Amino acid sequence: MPLPAVAVDDHNLLEQAQQIFAPLPSTMATEEFPTPDDRVQLGRMLFFDPRLTIDGNVSCATCHQPAFYGTDALPRSIGIRQRPHPRHAPTVLNAGTQFVIHWRGDRVNLEDQAFQAQTSPITGGHSDHQGIVDRVEQIQGYQPLFEKAFPKEPRLITAENIAKAIGAFERTLITPAAFDKYLAGDVNALSPAARTGLAKFIDSGCIACHDGVGVGGGKYAKFGVVEDYWHATGSRPIDKGRFDVTNNPDDLYVFRVASLRNIAMIGPYFHDGSVAKLGDAAKIMGRVQLGIQLTNTDTNEIVAFLESLTGEVPASFAHVPTLPPGSVISAH
Amino acid sequence: MPLPAVAVDDHNLLEQAQQIFAPLPSTMATEEFPTPDDRVQLGRMLFFDPRLTIDGNVSCATCHQPAFYGTDALPRSIGIRQRPHPRHAPTVLNAGTQFVIHWRGDRVNLEDQAFQAQTSPITGGHSDHQGIVDRVEQIQGYQPLFEKAFPKEPRLITAENIAKAIGAFERTLITPAAFDKYLAGDVNALSPAARTGLAKFIDSGCIACHDGVGVGGGKYAKFGVVEDYWHATGSRPIDKGRFDVTNNPDDLYVFRVASLRNIAMIGPYFHDGSVAKLGDAAKIMGRVQLGIQLTNTDTNEIVAFLESLTGEVPASFAHVPTLPPGSVISAH
Repeated sequence: MPLPAVAVDDHNLLEQAQQIFAPLPSTMATEEFPTPDDRVQLGRMLFFDPRLTIDGNVSCATCHQPAFYGTDALPRSIGIRQRPHPRHAPTVLNAGTQFVIHWRGDRVNLEDQAFQAQTSPITGGHSDHQGIVDRVEQIQGYQPLFEKAFPKEPRLITAENIAKAIGAFERTLITPAAFDKYLAGDVNALSPAARTGLAKFIDSGCIACHDGVGVGGGKYAKFGVVEDYWHATGSRPIDKGRFDVTNNPDDLYVFRVASLRNIAMIGPYFHDGSVAKLGDAAKIMGRVQLGIQLTNTDTNEIVAFLESLTGEVPASFAHVPTLPPGSVISAH
Repeated sequence: MPLPAVAVDDHNLLEQAQQIFAPLPSTMATEEFPTPDDRVQLGRMLFFDPRLTIDGNVSCATCHQPAFYGTDALPRSIGIRQRPHPRHAPTVLNAGTQFVIHWRGDRVNLEDQAFQAQTSPITGGHSDHQGIVDRVEQIQGYQPLFEKAFPKEPRLITAENIAKAIGAFERTLITPAAFDKYLAGDVNALSPAARTGLAKFIDSGCIACHDGVGVGGGKYAKFGVVEDYWHATGSRPIDKGRFDVTNNPDDLYVFRVASLRNIAMIGPYFHDGSVAKLGDAAKIMGRVQLGIQLTNTDTNEIVAFLESLTGEVPASFAHVPTLPPGSVISAH
């Protein structure tokens, strides 16, 4: 059934929203994973450097492009040697706000992701972590940058430090949006349609999963509560989600709830990019998660709210650094 | 034999240099290929958009990366579907100063390159030019940008206009360097070692080919005048150069002379990236083109001169634009 018409009480709506969501923090650094500038700048270079992967033509930025708000506009990404990634590339923007990394939560944090990616047969392709260390050591310009980024450490160029530097860079990629201004009290930062959409987003129950600082990204949930998700998305193959990680039947079709930050810019949607348009994705979520049928008006208003979650691509991400020159692949 | 010691007369050297070379122009636009800002901005977006190629994961910027001064740090580039390019990616920086495009001169100008790349089985992969038009038409955000870039044209989104826009962007990528200040009369813009290197570069005959605004890029020449090039470079396979384009025996092993602008940043060297280090490449050129043996001192000084040809990556190139969102590849 369609949602009831909403008479938005702006004052109450703001108070509700402030209880459910939170503005983006000014930093995603932690005590364990600080973001000193030298480390961030090194990580930024490593992030854009395709020489770190086995063929020398895939970098973090291949699947996490500044042009597409940190994803790649593909349903499922393409890794080294044209190998298909099984899932859609999640954006790196605000990724440090998430409680786990990857659709199935099989990476503990950004640094764990950057470490494991090095030897993933799809992402980095190295047979062991020494492979990436050898690559970085071949590029002479990196040595002094590691000295600055990791002062006083005996072994500088390690797989762990490469991962820490990339993680440090990613922890700076924060994109405050109109919605953050709204949460800070500026009701007019959201258009009337967006405020109506926010009210419907709250009242229809989307916030059961999509809450907090990321408007998602804070918990696991089954995709397809009311109805199997693939009936609505047309997904093939059917991804069992976290079940394939844990073998726990409770985790069947369970995924990390996606953060909706910048969602209008990072389609196609869902874990497999099976749905191209944001409005269609919203309708599918209403149908398979909540058993409701969003009208076109509902959908447009909810999309207007979701668009208020679009920030700006950070300049340090959009601006590609010049890398130390040098080839690590022999012509012969 | 080593070069004779050079006592550099700074005044005479500057006058000589001003006759042989020319500073970079402020624009590479022509009457036929103008660079109005709206067209340049559209071309910049198309340049970075991987959705234009058949798999949706390769853009112009894949082989012409801002991080590597418009090339990719690979000996030979990797195109769509992991297909190997037969030659090293030439930089797009200052490429409009060249008299022809590509190592073998088989592209008339930048716009011809951008047009033919669309249906190259390695680069764009479309079976015909309508393929790329269909792609661009699928991305709604491009329509108004074509309207601005090509006002009053009846058919806006065409393969020719895509090529013209990309060419217009490339024609803005100019990187003035210390050497241009020198040519303008500032002798101290070059270090004493670089000036000695310049004198040796002139006196030893490098300037027979590497002259003009690009310090190369203005004529064809046989690679391997004194000695077959592959004995020095170790190249495999042996590339017959322009002969394979024209079938003219005079073109055997003939290539477009490379511009040396930014040469210190765009290795590995030669048409096949067969040599990793600039000093080694300089020695090989002396050996196979001029029959001279450069000492380490000669080489270091010539490299110091060549480093004075390094400019800065233009901000419009280093800064990746945000692209209109939307997937053009179906998940199913």
